[in-house]
Amino acid sequence: MARINLKLQSLTREAFALFGDVIETEGARHFSINAGTIERFHDLAQVDVGTEGEGRPLISIAQCKQATELPIPVKFVERHPQGTQAFIPFLDTPLPIVVAPPGETVDPQDLRAFISNGNQGINYHRGVWHLPLIALQQGQQFLIVDRGGAGQNCDEFYFEGDEITLTQ
Amino acid sequence: MARINLKLQSLTREAFALFGDVIETEGARHFSINAGTIERFHDLAQVDVGTEGEGRPLISIAQCKQATELPIPVKFVERHPQGTQAFIPFLDTPLPIVVAPPGETVDPQDLRAFISNGNQGINYHRGVWHLPLIALQQGQQFLIVDRGGAGQNCDEFYFEGDEITLTQ
Repeated sequence: MARINLKLQSLTREAFALFGDVIETEGARHFSINAGTIERFHDLAQVDVGTEGEGRPLISIAQCKQATELPIPVKFVERHPQGTQAFIPFLDTPLPIVVAPPGETVDPQDLRAFISNGNQGINYHRGVWHLPLIALQQGQQFLIVDRGGAGQNCDEFYFEGDEITLTQ
Repeated sequence: MARINLKLQSLTREAFALFGDVIETEGARHFSINAGTIERFHDLAQVDVGTEGEGRPLISIAQCKQATELPIPVKFVERHPQGTQAFIPFLDTPLPIVVAPPGETVDPQDLRAFISNGNQGINYHRGVWHLPLIALQQGQQFLIVDRGGAGQNCDEFYFEGDEITLTQ
């Protein structure tokens, strides 16, 4: 049995590269469009909805009905084997993230926890284990870009006997 | 020669249906996820990046470098024959929109102008003629979900001899 205290660390592209993309203007490739009036920060996430089961990209909005107050126990993580999943906050909204690398099982020692700076979105790559979306304040909204279509696209992994706590 | 004064009208799903989707929680299908803590407003836009030329969905961010002050002349519109294009504001950001139905040419009489309520995003359907993105305040940001890949994906149509003005 493992007893693990996961502390939130600052989210950066480098630290998150193994798990997915950080969606932010900071440090992103950009160019002017529309006669110089608009700057486009281009292609910030690898959206991948596969080719099986009529996979197609969805745009949805998540809204927090009940805030999560840390610390919380981390009892399980989930993964989406058929597609990526992006969450982009609408307002200044720090997002707590818990991830583990793709694989058939999850070693609790491999879990990593991040907190976004409030203006960063994220895109989980296919198969990356993660805590389902939690939000720190009621009413917070996130845009979601993920996969719709036929087929099983959510697996869960439960930590039996391990005691994992996510803290500030 | 036509002299047309296009006035911004309130954006609603019904009024915009011919041109694309309105991305908003209001009136959208929704359900609870994550043990009831999060509400998901589901599948708000028909994202379509086609199957030709290695089309793939892109996530990008547009940031206004130079605000547009109305009235402005509308000299041309553009369309993307190979994919949809969604713009979703990050903050309370009313978005001016000018559209015309798909077709080989544009009749100035068919132009329609909308203003979003600040919390609405839009998704232009394939081939819908529209004014390139303009923003009313410097610094405003929009998330873009559109198509990347090979092939020509932007046509322009110029209004020769017509005098079209977009006003508040």
